[in-house]
Amino acid sequence: MESLHIYNTLTKQKEKFEPINPPNVGFYSCGPTVYNIPHLGNVRTFMAFDVMYRYLKHIGYKVKYVRNITDVGHMTNSAGIEADSIGDLAKAESVDPMQIVQKYTCAFHDLMRVFNIQPPDIEPTATGHIVEQIDMVEAIIKNGYAYEKNGSVYFDVPKFAKAYDYGKLSGRNIDEQQEGYRELDAQDEKNDPRDFAIWKDCDETYLQRYTSPWGKGVPGWHLECSVMSTKYLGQRFDIHGGGMDLKFPHHDCEIAQNIGAGEGEPVKYWVHTNMLTMNGKKMSKSLGNSIFPDELISGENDLMDKGFSPMVIRFFMLQSHYSSEFDLSNDALLAAEKGYKRLMNAQVSLNKLTHTEANTDTAEDEAVQQLCAQCNHKMNDDFNTAQTLAVLFELANKINAYTNKQSDVSKLSATTFQLLQTTFNTFVTDILGLQPEEEGNQEVVNGLMQLIIDIRAEARTKKDWGTSDKIRDDLNKLNILIKDGEETTWTYE
Amino acid sequence: MESLHIYNTLTKQKEKFEPINPPNVGFYSCGPTVYNIPHLGNVRTFMAFDVMYRYLKHIGYKVKYVRNITDVGHMTNSAGIEADSIGDLAKAESVDPMQIVQKYTCAFHDLMRVFNIQPPDIEPTATGHIVEQIDMVEAIIKNGYAYEKNGSVYFDVPKFAKAYDYGKLSGRNIDEQQEGYRELDAQDEKNDPRDFAIWKDCDETYLQRYTSPWGKGVPGWHLECSVMSTKYLGQRFDIHGGGMDLKFPHHDCEIAQNIGAGEGEPVKYWVHTNMLTMNGKKMSKSLGNSIFPDELISGENDLMDKGFSPMVIRFFMLQSHYSSEFDLSNDALLAAEKGYKRLMNAQVSLNKLTHTEANTDTAEDEAVQQLCAQCNHKMNDDFNTAQTLAVLFELANKINAYTNKQSDVSKLSATTFQLLQTTFNTFVTDILGLQPEEEGNQEVVNGLMQLIIDIRAEARTKKDWGTSDKIRDDLNKLNILIKDGEETTWTYE
Repeated sequence: MESLHIYNTLTKQKEKFEPINPPNVGFYSCGPTVYNIPHLGNVRTFMAFDVMYRYLKHIGYKVKYVRNITDVGHMTNSAGIEADSIGDLAKAESVDPMQIVQKYTCAFHDLMRVFNIQPPDIEPTATGHIVEQIDMVEAIIKNGYAYEKNGSVYFDVPKFAKAYDYGKLSGRNIDEQQEGYRELDAQDEKNDPRDFAIWKDCDETYLQRYTSPWGKGVPGWHLECSVMSTKYLGQRFDIHGGGMDLKFPHHDCEIAQNIGAGEGEPVKYWVHTNMLTMNGKKMSKSLGNSIFPDELISGENDLMDKGFSPMVIRFFMLQSHYSSEFDLSNDALLAAEKGYKRLMNAQVSLNKLTHTEANTDTAEDEAVQQLCAQCNHKMNDDFNTAQTLAVLFELANKINAYTNKQSDVSKLSATTFQLLQTTFNTFVTDILGLQPEEEGNQEVVNGLMQLIIDIRAEARTKKDWGTSDKIRDDLNKLNILIKDGEETTWTYE
Repeated sequence: MESLHIYNTLTKQKEKFEPINPPNVGFYSCGPTVYNIPHLGNVRTFMAFDVMYRYLKHIGYKVKYVRNITDVGHMTNSAGIEADSIGDLAKAESVDPMQIVQKYTCAFHDLMRVFNIQPPDIEPTATGHIVEQIDMVEAIIKNGYAYEKNGSVYFDVPKFAKAYDYGKLSGRNIDEQQEGYRELDAQDEKNDPRDFAIWKDCDETYLQRYTSPWGKGVPGWHLECSVMSTKYLGQRFDIHGGGMDLKFPHHDCEIAQNIGAGEGEPVKYWVHTNMLTMNGKKMSKSLGNSIFPDELISGENDLMDKGFSPMVIRFFMLQSHYSSEFDLSNDALLAAEKGYKRLMNAQVSLNKLTHTEANTDTAEDEAVQQLCAQCNHKMNDDFNTAQTLAVLFELANKINAYTNKQSDVSKLSATTFQLLQTTFNTFVTDILGLQPEEEGNQEVVNGLMQLIIDIRAEARTKKDWGTSDKIRDDLNKLNILIKDGEETTWTYE
């Protein structure tokens, strides 16, 4: 059988996927920091990994998927600016930091459910792994790659870089990095501006802090992923994913920490998702072109003509490869809505088709077989959902032709027809995770109401007041009101 | 304004509720141990506390509600038998303990959502508070109420009982307790059989264990609640709830630990929910009379004639006071289903009623005012949802009389009509958390289909084949099939 290939951002090439301990696959992805509502870029990232998770299971691997929740930690952005995001918000709202954590963890889970993104097998929290993080800090100190200063512990980047390739994932040269950092000033306690905190001393103004061998403090942000990935997946595991903005410093620091702790190179395949743009520009609050998921769904935003259902958005996101930048726009979403409906309608048609006899047409039979094989082929090519959808549309054309009798389904052998049903359903539902929209019932109601309005119009034309009155009375009992005008419409009372 | 009174299981009397630091209320309830699906008794407990939480907020308190997740810990049952429930299941299924935790945490959250039980403000986990639990063990040792033996730490019950009233919540006499325990044998390292582990040494056969000052181990089960309640709610807080089976040892041990750590008496008001029975008997697997929530909903069980919706079950549970034992039976649930529908239909009718003029009838006006006041009065009486529902049904009778024109809504003053709408909607929706069932659309479809079937029958009687054919064709487009027989029925194709 053809093998899965994955673009490994560590080696910068597409590689045959060979798990360390088949059939097991260990898969870690960086999860959300729970102090705000996830943005559409986060949704795309978690959706991309969801499809990888589903596909790896589909091709027979026993996958353990770990996605963390960051609910405490000393964070620094790429410019080295410190932030206590959860604590600061808790102070602003006069609540406990764990109330912030709970609020946004619930919001995150709600959003994942709405987009049919499966829960991971383990969802560890940073607060749930303080002891293990302290253990790792101690190991790194013991190996000489970290030092304590005033209750904080810093990773010694220059020393590590002498022995190992620091920054290899992002491709940042250790000397170039020097330029990105401001000079140390008198207050700085680091030996080198590139050093980063793996444990940070916290005085009593910090709402979250823990007893440690170095006094009360919190773990550095990068540390939790080093700890939680290897705790659950082993010191060397198969796949680590994240948004491409996490390559540096977060992921490069993770690698350094695991090696510094004496555990060796942690990850075999690194995968990174690309960014989202809006009408061709980077989304940002300051440009006013940023939309949150719920605003995109409800239509309550200034950038789209209407709302789009979560499944249309899912379909839309899967139309591009996870490693490509992709652009949100009203027109693109409207097109995706049509495409999504066409695909789902084809699935309904397929499942209604019956195949009673076979007058096998070899050309047609082989064409369908090859398209089915292409679905796997495209997904095996670095999870290419965009091209998989293209193949599914070719199959949808076939299905529609059989349904409309433009072509005859009996041209397929019984085996091929069975293959078509299994492949189409598996890829649409199980692998791409696309579900029928729940408005199905509403469409039925609309259809039935149109039929009743037609019958009523006919009855009134015939002066059949009995029927017309019955319709009015019965609808009244259902709290439905018909309004006559240029066009007859109806509403619930 | 009339005060809320709560039956305090610590003092065994109904007491006026006077929070320690008004308008803040700290409320802690013991959450699930996540190694199995919650049973109906758990649902009842969490639902009871959900209503308390909602009502406390309704009457103006700023409530911080904390409900924990037990995802690690050394447990002992009331007979003193040790259990590593999560670890044992993980071994049986060859997975990581945190996969068990994730699976059953998700199942628990799904169930809470189905029953419209609001998430707490903080949902802390035992694994998330290992450091704090170690801190408390150290404090208890320091105060002389615990001792270390071979890497485990035990709470010294006899010593504590000399200074404080151990077992006061459950009312167990320390000397009587002696009888409930087997004699210590040679392997036992406890000084007294009544002593309980607050930290338990774990060798490498344990899948979950943590670095501590006493070696690798896990916290004792009772410890987490002592730690997490006081961490988030303060050393003395207002309300602590749990199932009555938790009074001993769990809650009595909690009190002992908090006092032993030097924090003082932790809880002002203890509340305990009572048990569920099935057809008059205790539910148990061995009796074969146990039903899980999903089986009760789906109807896939041998004890009920049909399934019952989550809202019917919620209504049913709220029909009894949380401190009463209550009995599940097919007849009682069928009756609850009728009651629930009557209540929800009254709400629909109420919100359709218009009050355009007032010809105030003083007696009627005052009657409605008093019934509205009774809703608060009954809830103020130890959250008596059973009696609150009884009052709401009296209001429903009024509403139905106005709707059916048996009585005239203009008998109410505008203010009273407004009060009626606000009170009824607030108590049904916000406080009791009862929502309309989502099958609403299905009822409309059923109603429209019945109308269409009637029209078609009439058309066929009149030999109006045009109408009959149009109905068949239009339904066909909606994938609806009519089947003629003794009775005409329909199905989706």
